[in-house]
Amino acid sequence: MIKTLGYAAHSATASLDAFHFERREPGPQDVQIEILYCGVCHSDIHTARNEWKNSVYPVVPGHEIVGRVTQVGNEVTTFKAGDLAGVGCMVDSCGTCPDCHESLEQYCTNSPTFTYNSPDPHTGKMTYGGYSQRVVVNQRFVLRVSEKLNLPAVAPLLCAGITTYSPLREWKVGKGQKVGVVGLGGLGHMGVKFAHALGAHTVLFTTTPGKAADGQRLGADEVVISKNPEEMQRHLGSFDFILNTVAAPHNLDAYLELLKRDGTMCLVGAPEDPHPSPNVFNLIFRRRRLVGSLIGGIKETQEMLDFCAEHDIVSDIEMIPMQKINEAYERMLRSDVKYRFVIDMASLK
Amino acid sequence: MIKTLGYAAHSATASLDAFHFERREPGPQDVQIEILYCGVCHSDIHTARNEWKNSVYPVVPGHEIVGRVTQVGNEVTTFKAGDLAGVGCMVDSCGTCPDCHESLEQYCTNSPTFTYNSPDPHTGKMTYGGYSQRVVVNQRFVLRVSEKLNLPAVAPLLCAGITTYSPLREWKVGKGQKVGVVGLGGLGHMGVKFAHALGAHTVLFTTTPGKAADGQRLGADEVVISKNPEEMQRHLGSFDFILNTVAAPHNLDAYLELLKRDGTMCLVGAPEDPHPSPNVFNLIFRRRRLVGSLIGGIKETQEMLDFCAEHDIVSDIEMIPMQKINEAYERMLRSDVKYRFVIDMASLK
Repeated sequence: MIKTLGYAAHSATASLDAFHFERREPGPQDVQIEILYCGVCHSDIHTARNEWKNSVYPVVPGHEIVGRVTQVGNEVTTFKAGDLAGVGCMVDSCGTCPDCHESLEQYCTNSPTFTYNSPDPHTGKMTYGGYSQRVVVNQRFVLRVSEKLNLPAVAPLLCAGITTYSPLREWKVGKGQKVGVVGLGGLGHMGVKFAHALGAHTVLFTTTPGKAADGQRLGADEVVISKNPEEMQRHLGSFDFILNTVAAPHNLDAYLELLKRDGTMCLVGAPEDPHPSPNVFNLIFRRRRLVGSLIGGIKETQEMLDFCAEHDIVSDIEMIPMQKINEAYERMLRSDVKYRFVIDMASLK
Repeated sequence: MIKTLGYAAHSATASLDAFHFERREPGPQDVQIEILYCGVCHSDIHTARNEWKNSVYPVVPGHEIVGRVTQVGNEVTTFKAGDLAGVGCMVDSCGTCPDCHESLEQYCTNSPTFTYNSPDPHTGKMTYGGYSQRVVVNQRFVLRVSEKLNLPAVAPLLCAGITTYSPLREWKVGKGQKVGVVGLGGLGHMGVKFAHALGAHTVLFTTTPGKAADGQRLGADEVVISKNPEEMQRHLGSFDFILNTVAAPHNLDAYLELLKRDGTMCLVGAPEDPHPSPNVFNLIFRRRRLVGSLIGGIKETQEMLDFCAEHDIVSDIEMIPMQKINEAYERMLRSDVKYRFVIDMASLK
């Protein structure tokens, strides 16, 4: 077993603090990674504070992991010591169900093993995430990371990146389309970058007029202040696709009305309390579609990372030492971050 | 102008009663049809009673019309006097917008002219529907009806038929799929017939155990009593497509959970009050889709009528004279009809 230092929450109300635990020795299929950077996702807060009512303590959050391979099992073919590597929201899945066969491990019929707070078949305990010095992961769930991108800013691609990239690809967003992104946070700012890079006319919806200039810098062709009904009215029935990244309950009809006939709004934010019920007439009268999407499969995550290397796309980040994580959580809850905190794991040394 | 006798509601609370009005003389593109039978749709009640808050009185309902052509304009090429003909929910549309160009007139950007309670460009008043002796309609909106089907039972195909056929086709329902139909009323009983005829393994959901045998007779391979949680649980995550025909507010999550990954539930019922808000997690965790659909375009309505002639499909009906319409409305509100009332217009003579 490999002694490892991380940061954990020990209850829903406790601050995160140093926590010593052990990683398994790498098996034949395993890759051991020294974690260099880990992004801070809103799911980390939800889980640390048991807001989804499924936390098992201690919780070591973190599923936006980049680092360097230090050791590989003897059956590992695609990684060697010294390589850069990434790990996202999943570290294993059954590999045998139809979803896994279609490279959609996130929807694994037998449930994937998530990177933290998920039953760990190797230890009998729960998985511990990337707020830690190192991680040991089956090679099938380790991603290749380009040397040419700014490494700390790659970390958030492993969750915020794939969560926005996957629905844009599934619903075939591209040139000639008008695409909306609702919310300019960790997810939304990646959504704007991807929709723009895919060639769509990209419209950012935000409640905050102060974010307009930044939205344009990130790739938005237009910015709509969603609190202004007149601005919203100008876009009625004009969108092919809207990616809604807002996790707080809000009026979905205001966006459904903006879709064309056969247009789709995809929800990737998971609110604690339900949204107000959408108006069925908005779906029926123009055959509109309201859908959801969860991260992305491993194959598509690699495709996304390769797309980012090709198009020079990374997350906009603010780096923090591990010791500042509790303060970072408070700032995230005030939307005071542009646009993702990334923990520098050198601070754990 | 052609003197015409019909039945109208003169206020939201009044019974329907005899009403004399005039149809226009047929223009060069028009087809004049002597109405033989008219189906009774739940929308007729909603409009007669102003439950959608858009009724302009007097309201002459009826948009499931079959009859015989008595006269045609000199530019009419596809109909001649003596032909059978059908008219559904629409009698005109702009013909120039992208939706009309794609034969999706029901979504016409400039709004189609609906068969009743819709501004009528010819008269400056509202359109009057099929609870009447005759109708004059532009040939583009007149359907060909086979002589080989039972004519009164064809009438409901013009709304209940196309409303269920169109989404089953749009979402490519067919062999090898498991398809649910929620509710066994005017729409639902057509949904079961079509899903079965399209080759899907068809499952009827009903709250009424007494409808099980009838559901099987109509083509359901299985009947699930939706009030029984254990029966519902057995179908978790197993449906490719669910056609939800229930117009009363109900828990959508109970059905969303039954969809496979990437499965779709289509709503065709339009409740007065909203459904309880669906759980976003049910959409996100298996990339499920919640959609709506409105009747069908004219081209697809003709395709549906031809499909019915080929597969010997009609509605199950109970015939009434025009004078019994108010009683029929009360019985429909108690779900006391198998499965559609059809008015015999001979009763108006």
